Amino acid sequence: MKNRKSKYETFREKIKIILYGTNTILGRMFDLVLLGLILLSVLLIMLDTVEGISQKYHEQLLICEWAITVFFTIEYILRIISIQKPIKYIFSFYGIIDLLAVLPMYLSIFFPGASILSIVRALRFFRLFKILHIPQISHQSAQLKDAIEASKEKILVFIYFVLISTVIIGSVMYLVEGKESGFTSIPMGIYWTIVTLTTVGYGDISPQSPLGQFIAALVMILGYGIIAVPTGIVTAEFAKNTLKNNTVSGKKTCRKCQSQLHFDNAKYCYECGTQLPNN
Amino acid sequence: MKNRKSKYETFREKIKIILYGTNTILGRMFDLVLLGLILLSVLLIMLDTVEGISQKYHEQLLICEWAITVFFTIEYILRIISIQKPIKYIFSFYGIIDLLAVLPMYLSIFFPGASILSIVRALRFFRLFKILHIPQISHQSAQLKDAIEASKEKILVFIYFVLISTVIIGSVMYLVEGKESGFTSIPMGIYWTIVTLTTVGYGDISPQSPLGQFIAALVMILGYGIIAVPTGIVTAEFAKNTLKNNTVSGKKTCRKCQSQLHFDNAKYCYECGTQLPNN
Amino acid sequence: MKNRKSKYETFREKIKIILYGTNTILGRMFDLVLLGLILLSVLLIMLDTVEGISQKYHEQLLICEWAITVFFTIEYILRIISIQKPIKYIFSFYGIIDLLAVLPMYLSIFFPGASILSIVRALRFFRLFKILHIPQISHQSAQLKDAIEASKEKILVFIYFVLISTVIIGSVMYLVEGKESGFTSIPMGIYWTIVTLTTVGYGDISPQSPLGQFIAALVMILGYGIIAVPTGIVTAEFAKNTLKNNTVSGKKTCRKCQSQLHFDNAKYCYECGTQLPNN
Amino acid sequence: MKNRKSKYETFREKIKIILYGTNTILGRMFDLVLLGLILLSVLLIMLDTVEGISQKYHEQLLICEWAITVFFTIEYILRIISIQKPIKYIFSFYGIIDLLAVLPMYLSIFFPGASILSIVRALRFFRLFKILHIPQISHQSAQLKDAIEASKEKILVFIYFVLISTVIIGSVMYLVEGKESGFTSIPMGIYWTIVTLTTVGYGDISPQSPLGQFIAALVMILGYGIIAVPTGIVTAEFAKNTLKNNTVSGKKTCRKCQSQLHFDNAKYCYECGTQLPNN
Repeated sequence: MKNRKSKYETFREKIKIILYGTNTILGRMFDLVLLGLILLSVLLIMLDTVEGISQKYHEQLLICEWAITVFFTIEYILRIISIQKPIKYIFSFYGIIDLLAVLPMYLSIFFPGASILSIVRALRFFRLFKILHIPQISHQSAQLKDAIEASKEKILVFIYFVLISTVIIGSVMYLVEGKESGFTSIPMGIYWTIVTLTTVGYGDISPQSPLGQFIAALVMILGYGIIAVPTGIVTAEFAKNTLKNNTVSGKKTCRKCQSQLHFDNAKYCYECGTQLPNN
Repeated sequence: MKNRKSKYETFREKIKIILYGTNTILGRMFDLVLLGLILLSVLLIMLDTVEGISQKYHEQLLICEWAITVFFTIEYILRIISIQKPIKYIFSFYGIIDLLAVLPMYLSIFFPGASILSIVRALRFFRLFKILHIPQISHQSAQLKDAIEASKEKILVFIYFVLISTVIIGSVMYLVEGKESGFTSIPMGIYWTIVTLTTVGYGDISPQSPLGQFIAALVMILGYGIIAVPTGIVTAEFAKNTLKNNTVSGKKTCRKCQSQLHFDNAKYCYECGTQLPNN
Repeated sequence: MKNRKSKYETFREKIKIILYGTNTILGRMFDLVLLGLILLSVLLIMLDTVEGISQKYHEQLLICEWAITVFFTIEYILRIISIQKPIKYIFSFYGIIDLLAVLPMYLSIFFPGASILSIVRALRFFRLFKILHIPQISHQSAQLKDAIEASKEKILVFIYFVLISTVIIGSVMYLVEGKESGFTSIPMGIYWTIVTLTTVGYGDISPQSPLGQFIAALVMILGYGIIAVPTGIVTAEFAKNTLKNNTVSGKKTCRKCQSQLHFDNAKYCYECGTQLPNN
Repeated sequence: MKNRKSKYETFREKIKIILYGTNTILGRMFDLVLLGLILLSVLLIMLDTVEGISQKYHEQLLICEWAITVFFTIEYILRIISIQKPIKYIFSFYGIIDLLAVLPMYLSIFFPGASILSIVRALRFFRLFKILHIPQISHQSAQLKDAIEASKEKILVFIYFVLISTVIIGSVMYLVEGKESGFTSIPMGIYWTIVTLTTVGYGDISPQSPLGQFIAALVMILGYGIIAVPTGIVTAEFAKNTLKNNTVSGKKTCRKCQSQLHFDNAKYCYECGTQLPNN
């Protein structure tokens, strides 16, 4: 009995290395196959919505989707079985996505049309970084994340102000232009304001009266200055990160001689050679 | 008599704490209710302009709007009564907005349709920062304000140049394209130029002749370079603010040892420990 | 005779102070009147192209335009007479604009329709900076000019590369999309590419075939990265200007003690107190 | 015999100087003629696709194109003959472009319509920098290249995230809007998302339902923040390059006195005058 258990254990161990490991050849190969299948699956779901293709190849596409879904299901079950703490995996970010990637297909048995929700499989692409495990890239994406994180609050405050402005501008445009020009309601006016301030400018709604066009021109020039703000925020954060290693921010103090003028990436005090603390 | 007066005083004191205070539980709760009512009110006014909704629920919406208006009116009166210097409040930024938030509804009794102006209530959202009173956020918005303030002049000079250019470009396009392409007048040409230079690009008016399209292409490439300018101005200000605390600008000199190489945020001389003057 | 000459001299002197001076009250007042007339004149020419207004008030507008033109002509002649070196003024930037501002109106006697060219009067607005003479603003516009000047070359090299790319992309789109989608020729394809890369996006021409839309999506994502380049160039120049006074660029060397670590805005050596040379 | 060989050698030498040299007057003149011919050729190919011009002057244009093609062919052959290592040239970037510039015309004998591919001649413009050989410009383009190179990885990581988002957003919009609004398939939804996120905004497809417009507004505001990211990345790199020579990054240490506070472009120790190592 112990022997059999041990066999199962070895099997579990092997599965775990293949599924979670990125160091062995087998683990890496499985990851690449997985990525390929995710890409294939996302493309198939997309193509199935294109009328010309769907009419001709719907059956073949459906079979492929089911095959990939079954594969993903087995993979999901094996991931739960092989890991020590299955609960932790199930409720992790990747665990939830892995489940969401297979659920819609099974739901489509009862609710036809649900299969299209399988497109959330696209989120599994995020795993690429884990798989590739190139330190340079994960460093880059960490830097990206840091800069965005640091500027998040400022940008939120900024968007809050912009949103209040859009309500006011949208209402003014609704009053000035009226229903003939497509400004059928205040929410429509707000939609137009956002389309204009972000410089997207579809042109599905556009002011027709001279006064409306004058206000629109003012809004665009305002948007000109406004678009500079989030860019400025993010750029300043990037510049800070990029310049960090070259600056003397005075955050490091030598424990021995108490000198402060150390570079941020300095390891030893330039006065007495004592090792400096990491921040 | 004194007792009764005192009662009124106590009542006034209580009201003031609720309306203006943000430290007591009651004061905070009132603020949250107020924010919720502003949001509800703005949404109601918006929805009342959507044809489908207005036809069905106009009466109900009107009743809600009146209820909220009466609430805001009582609040406004209480704010005047409870504060020591009512004149100062009435003519303050928030005081004027609070008045404008209730006026249109009463005007609508005499001038139907004025009720839509109640949308200015959206401006009351600015109070959120006062209410939340999160030091971090008010710090962020102060930084935002500083950077925008500092770049305001440069941006105005820049917009002045851009406006002169739009007059010239707009006239050229009016002459080149003519009325068939929608360039019906010079102001229309200027409108098109602003739509193009800001990269909004509605497409309601667009050049049709080869020469017009050639000039338009030049204008777009010009706009390419031009859009960089306000961004550059604002970003440089942000970068300055972000890097300020980390730089050695030489503005601080130790009164005792005359050493100059101090960080801008340094409080004590790193040579002799003497307190440094604030700039 | 000498007396009369002297009278004429005094008159010339007076005129010069009024026309060119910005320090006397009379000179300033004249400048403000001038600015007002330029603004009025530009507005009149604009309005004369608006059909509804032109039909009703063409005569009145024409009379006003002629009155202003005569005023500008007298001003131009007086400017030439009153100055010592008239040739220098005539061929200066402002001199040429002043002439161009009156010429079209006289040409319109022989060539009807030339009067519209009077819109070049808008260029006379540049004089505002000379008139206002606010040191802060002229400092700002000098900074703007410096940053744009410094980034001009880099932006030209960049635009050269972009233009070559637009030729290639425009041709590919012409081949892929063809005449049905509006891509009637390679120049049209290049026009579309510029409209797309600059994120203007009129929508007068847009790809219809799946392949064309795929390439268009690639071009847009490319444009995403590309729009960052001129912004980056200009911003770096602004940042340089903004941070200049706070940096230690090592351009200053003390003549006495040869120490180099001086701030760019330092006036005295922080080692020995010797005055530092200006750069 | 030797004499004749020598004559051929001299001829080869002369040709090489004319074709590859940029220092002699003859070499420079040839380069300018070449640039002019490339420009002419590209313009001719463009014009030949414009219907009105093609119908009238197709024959003349064709003759010119053939003449230029023959000239380019002779030039290509001479380039191969005159150089020491012809293989290296043939497979170099410029060598391949030079071949591609003449091939389509000869192919058009067998496959009519291939002549249009001659537009790749536009790539020969890149040679301008080699020809002009202005150190300032090649320095500028090197700086541009460096900054773009350094930010390439970060931008790729960023675009990867954006692409995953477009798949999700595009699918949501396909489900919400449906075929009536032009969202005929998921790929179409993704195309719309890219058009919107990049702020191009053609308006050929735009949301019609209130929910769709609400989501579109969210996407635009998201795009607002997102467009800041590549700009931030590139700008930080530019700023780094621009500020590099002015910073004290602590990478240089004097071998004699071990002082560290040297400027990045310092050549000698400012303490003891010892030559500093290059990094």
